[in-house]
Amino acid sequence: MAGSDGGLLIVGSVALDSVETPSGRVERALGGAAVYSSIAASFFAPVRLVGVVGEDFPKEHIAFLASRGIDTRGLQVIPGGRTFHWKGAYYGDLNQAETIATELNVFRDFNPRLPEDYRRCRFVFLANIDPELQLAVLDQVESPTLTACDTMNFWIEGKKAALLEVLNRVDVAFMNDAEVRLLTGQSNLNRAAEEVRKLGPRYVVVKKGEHGAVMYCNESICFTAASYPLHQVVDPTGAGDSFAGGFMGYIARVGEINEANLRRAVVYGSALASFNVQDFSLNRLKHLTMEEIHARCEEFRRIVHFDPE
Amino acid sequence: MAGSDGGLLIVGSVALDSVETPSGRVERALGGAAVYSSIAASFFAPVRLVGVVGEDFPKEHIAFLASRGIDTRGLQVIPGGRTFHWKGAYYGDLNQAETIATELNVFRDFNPRLPEDYRRCRFVFLANIDPELQLAVLDQVESPTLTACDTMNFWIEGKKAALLEVLNRVDVAFMNDAEVRLLTGQSNLNRAAEEVRKLGPRYVVVKKGEHGAVMYCNESICFTAASYPLHQVVDPTGAGDSFAGGFMGYIARVGEINEANLRRAVVYGSALASFNVQDFSLNRLKHLTMEEIHARCEEFRRIVHFDPE
Repeated sequence: MAGSDGGLLIVGSVALDSVETPSGRVERALGGAAVYSSIAASFFAPVRLVGVVGEDFPKEHIAFLASRGIDTRGLQVIPGGRTFHWKGAYYGDLNQAETIATELNVFRDFNPRLPEDYRRCRFVFLANIDPELQLAVLDQVESPTLTACDTMNFWIEGKKAALLEVLNRVDVAFMNDAEVRLLTGQSNLNRAAEEVRKLGPRYVVVKKGEHGAVMYCNESICFTAASYPLHQVVDPTGAGDSFAGGFMGYIARVGEINEANLRRAVVYGSALASFNVQDFSLNRLKHLTMEEIHARCEEFRRIVHFDPE
Repeated sequence: MAGSDGGLLIVGSVALDSVETPSGRVERALGGAAVYSSIAASFFAPVRLVGVVGEDFPKEHIAFLASRGIDTRGLQVIPGGRTFHWKGAYYGDLNQAETIATELNVFRDFNPRLPEDYRRCRFVFLANIDPELQLAVLDQVESPTLTACDTMNFWIEGKKAALLEVLNRVDVAFMNDAEVRLLTGQSNLNRAAEEVRKLGPRYVVVKKGEHGAVMYCNESICFTAASYPLHQVVDPTGAGDSFAGGFMGYIARVGEINEANLRRAVVYGSALASFNVQDFSLNRLKHLTMEEIHARCEEFRRIVHFDPE
C-alpha cells in the first residue's frame, strides 16, 4: 500500500502494577495492556506505542521497551505526574482478578495523539481503554489494513454506545467469554460470539483463560486453540494483552490476512499468553526467545493432533 | 485373550428423567448414565448392560436398547417396583443441573450381578454409581483389558475411601473439571488431573462441558479435544455419559490401547456428546448415523487445524 507502513500501532495503558497471587507478590512492577501487548508483538514486528506515564516511570522500563525495538515516541511523559497504578490480587483458580486499588493518575487525562508517521501504520491494536479514546485513535489513522480492539466489562456497562461504534469500525474484536456474554445477553457462547460479529468485526476472538481461545470467522468457520497445560500459573495479569499482542504482531509480520495466517495468529497469541503467566509482570517475556515460541507452537499442535482412521 | 470377549460391559443407572431447559421440557423420558453411555457405545461395539428398573419401565425402551444391539439380560426388572426417577432443570448457560427431585425407587437396592458370560468382557465402564457397587463389579470381572469409571461430587464428598479404591483399580477415570478439583483440593486443573492420575488410573479424562475435554496420559502427554461450537444446547443431560460411552465403545471396537487410538476415542466421545445435547433424552442419538459421526469428527479436526509456517 503506497505510503503505508508495515508496523503495528498499539494504544493503551502503561502502568505500574502491584499484584499478589498464591505464588507471591510484586510492588509497582511494569505493566499495562499496551506494554504487555507491545512486548508480545515485538517478537514479530516493529511496534509503535502510544500511552502516557508520569515522571516517576522508571527509565529502565523505557529502555526495556526500546531494547525490544518498540518505538516509544508516542509515549507521553507528564512532568510532575504519577503513572497509572493498579493494585490487585488473584485467589483460588486465578481466573478472576480482585482490584484493590486503581490510581488513574496521569491516565485520567490520557488523550492519545499519534505522531505523524504513526498514522500510516497498517496494523492497529486498540488495547482496553475508554472506547471514546479508541474512536479518537481510529479518527487519526489512515486506511489501515487491519484494526483490532479489546475492551472490558466496565465499558460494556458504562459506555456501551461508544463501544458499539468501535466494534462497528474494527476488523477484529478480542473479548473474554464473560464480556461476550455480558455484551449480548446471550448465554450460549458460540451464539454470543456470532452476535458480536454481526455488530461489525469480521473476526471475533474469544479468550477463555485456562480453556484456550476461539476465533469466529463466519457462520461456519471457527478455530479453537487449546490452552497450554501449565501446572502453575504464577500471575495471570496481562494474559489477554499478550495474547492480542502475539496475534497482531504475527499478522503485522506476515502482512496478509487469510485463514491460514489467522489460525496461526491465534496459536502465536496463545503461546505468548502461556509464557506470560509463568512469571510476574513482564519477567518471563523479558528472556523469551523465538526458539521457545516456535517450540511451544509445536506443542500446541501436538496437544490437539489426532489422525483419522 | 483366551476365553475373553470383545464386548463392552456397562453398569450404571437406568432412569426416567423429567427435565426442563430453556428449550422445553420432557416428562419421564428415557435416561440414566448406563443408557446414555450404552447407546453412544453401541455405534462402535457390542454392549452388555447391567442395571435395574421397575415394572413401570416402558417395554419400548428395552426394545430400543435391543434394537441398538445392546444385550439387556443384565437389566433386572423388579416386579411391582418403580424405576429410578430424576427430575431436574437447567438455567442460564446450562452448565449446571439443578436437581428438583431424586426418587431412587428400585435403584436404592441396586446390587449389580453379572450374568456369567458378562464376566469375560474385555472392556468395562462403571458409570456414575456408588463406588462400593463399582468395586463389587470389579470383583466379578475376569482380567479385563481396560476398565473405566465415572463418578460425581456426591461420592467424592460422601464415600471418598471407596472411590479412592475404585480409582486405584481402574485404568481410565472420567471426571468433570469441578470433580477433579474437589477430589484433589488443587485449583490448577492440569495439576489436579495429574494428582488423580497418581491415585491409580493410567488415563484421566477431564470433561469440561462447553470447553471440550482433556485426556492426561502422563507428565508430558495430554490431548485436548475442542468443544463442538453448537449454537444451541437443548438438553445437556447425559453429555458426560455419552462422551464416556463413545470413548469406551471406540476402544472396544479397535481393541488396542495406544496413544493414537486413545486420542481418537476422545474425539469420538466428544462427537457423541455434542450430538446428544442437541435434543432431549436419547432423541438425537436415536436417529444418528455413523456417517454423521464421521463428518463431525472431521469437523473436530478442522476446528483445531493449523499449518506450521
